[in-house]
Amino acid sequence: MSRALHPPPPAQDESKFLDFYFDFISPYGYFALHQIEPLAARHGRTLRWHPFHMRAVTKDVLGMTQALADVPLKGAYVRHDVRRMARYLGVAYNPAPAASFSSVTASRVFYLIQERDPAAAARYAHAVFHSQHALAQPPNTWDQCTALATQAGVDAAALVEAEQAGRARELFRQATEDAVAQGVWGTPTFITDQEMFWGCDRIAQLDEWLQRGGW
Amino acid sequence: MSRALHPPPPAQDESKFLDFYFDFISPYGYFALHQIEPLAARHGRTLRWHPFHMRAVTKDVLGMTQALADVPLKGAYVRHDVRRMARYLGVAYNPAPAASFSSVTASRVFYLIQERDPAAAARYAHAVFHSQHALAQPPNTWDQCTALATQAGVDAAALVEAEQAGRARELFRQATEDAVAQGVWGTPTFITDQEMFWGCDRIAQLDEWLQRGGW
Repeated sequence: MSRALHPPPPAQDESKFLDFYFDFISPYGYFALHQIEPLAARHGRTLRWHPFHMRAVTKDVLGMTQALADVPLKGAYVRHDVRRMARYLGVAYNPAPAASFSSVTASRVFYLIQERDPAAAARYAHAVFHSQHALAQPPNTWDQCTALATQAGVDAAALVEAEQAGRARELFRQATEDAVAQGVWGTPTFITDQEMFWGCDRIAQLDEWLQRGGW
Repeated sequence: MSRALHPPPPAQDESKFLDFYFDFISPYGYFALHQIEPLAARHGRTLRWHPFHMRAVTKDVLGMTQALADVPLKGAYVRHDVRRMARYLGVAYNPAPAASFSSVTASRVFYLIQERDPAAAARYAHAVFHSQHALAQPPNTWDQCTALATQAGVDAAALVEAEQAGRARELFRQATEDAVAQGVWGTPTFITDQEMFWGCDRIAQLDEWLQRGGW
C-alpha cells in the first residue's frame, strides 16, 4: 500500500536528471542549494529535489545517537566551518538554532506541493531554507509552512485538502525510505547516473564528473 | 614528566608553518599527502607533520564505537569514494585492508626519527603511506617500520637505542593528546594561523585561504 503512493516512475532517461538529497535542517544543504541549480542548468539536467529525514537515518540506519552539534570537537569545528563557508560563498547566513527547528512538517508540505507542481515545490524549498538559515525563522508549524507555500505561489487550500488524507506524512516517510534505498546517508548528497557524491564541498568534483563523463 | 618530553616550543613565527594532522591508516590522509607538500611550498610554509592515533580520538573523545567501514551505507560510500578519489588525483592506490594495519608502531617510529631529523621523518612518512596504501604491505612490526626508516636514510641502530627508553610510545601518546588539545578530531586536518580545515576535499579552500589571507 505504501508502494502505491510512490509507484516506480516510468522508465526515464536518467541522463537528463540530477538528484539532490537533503534535510532542510542542514546548513550544508542550504549552501549546496546556491550552487546546485546553476550546475544542473549548465549540464542540461533537471534537478530532482529529495528532502528526507536525516535524523531518522542517522539514528535508525547509521546507529548514531549523538547529534552532530554535541560531538566533542567536531561540533565546534562545524559551528566554525559553516560561518566560514557562508562567507566564502557570499551567502546570507543567520540561522535559527538547529534545536529550534524540526524539518518534518516543512518536508511533508514539500511533497504535497511537489505532487501538484514541481516548480512551485522548488521555490518553496528555497523559502524554507531561507527562512531557517538566513532569517532565523524556523518554519515548524503547518501554518508557517503553508505561508511559505503561498509565497511560492501555491494554493494553500489545496494543501489542506490533500493533507486531510494523512498523505503528507506517508509521502515523507516513503521519501526517506527511498533515499536510504539509494544508499543516501548524509546531507547534502547528489546522485547522477548512479554516481553518488556527498557534501557541499564535493560540488566541484561533481561538476567535473558531469563535464568529463566520469573517470 | 610527560610534559618534559614535549616542552612548549620556543615562540616561533607561526605564519611560516602549516600543520598536517593525520593517521597513517587514513586513505584520505594518503591522498592529502600528494597535495599538501606542493601547497606548503607554494605559500613558503614549512610543513609540520603530526601523525596521531585516530582510533583513540574517535573512541575516547568523540564517543564513537563503530569503525567507519562498519557504518551502514557510509562505509560502502567511502569504499567507493576512495577509489574514485585515487583515480581523480592520479595516485597509485592498492591498499592493504584497514583491519590488517595498525598505525601505532609506524607512528611511534616516526616520532623517534623526527626528533633527530625532520626531513628524514617526512621521507619515512611517505614510505609508510606508500607501503600501506599503494603496495598493500602494512608496516605493522618494529622491523617492518625500521626497514622503511632505513630506506629513508635513517640509522636504524639509533632508533633501537632511543626506543629502549620507551620513549616512542610516550611521544606518540603525547602527540595524540596535543592534536586533541588543538581541536583535531579527524584525519587529515590542516591548521594554518589557527584556522582549521578538515578533509582532503578542503585543500583547495585551504589554498585559497592562504592566498587571500582568509575571508
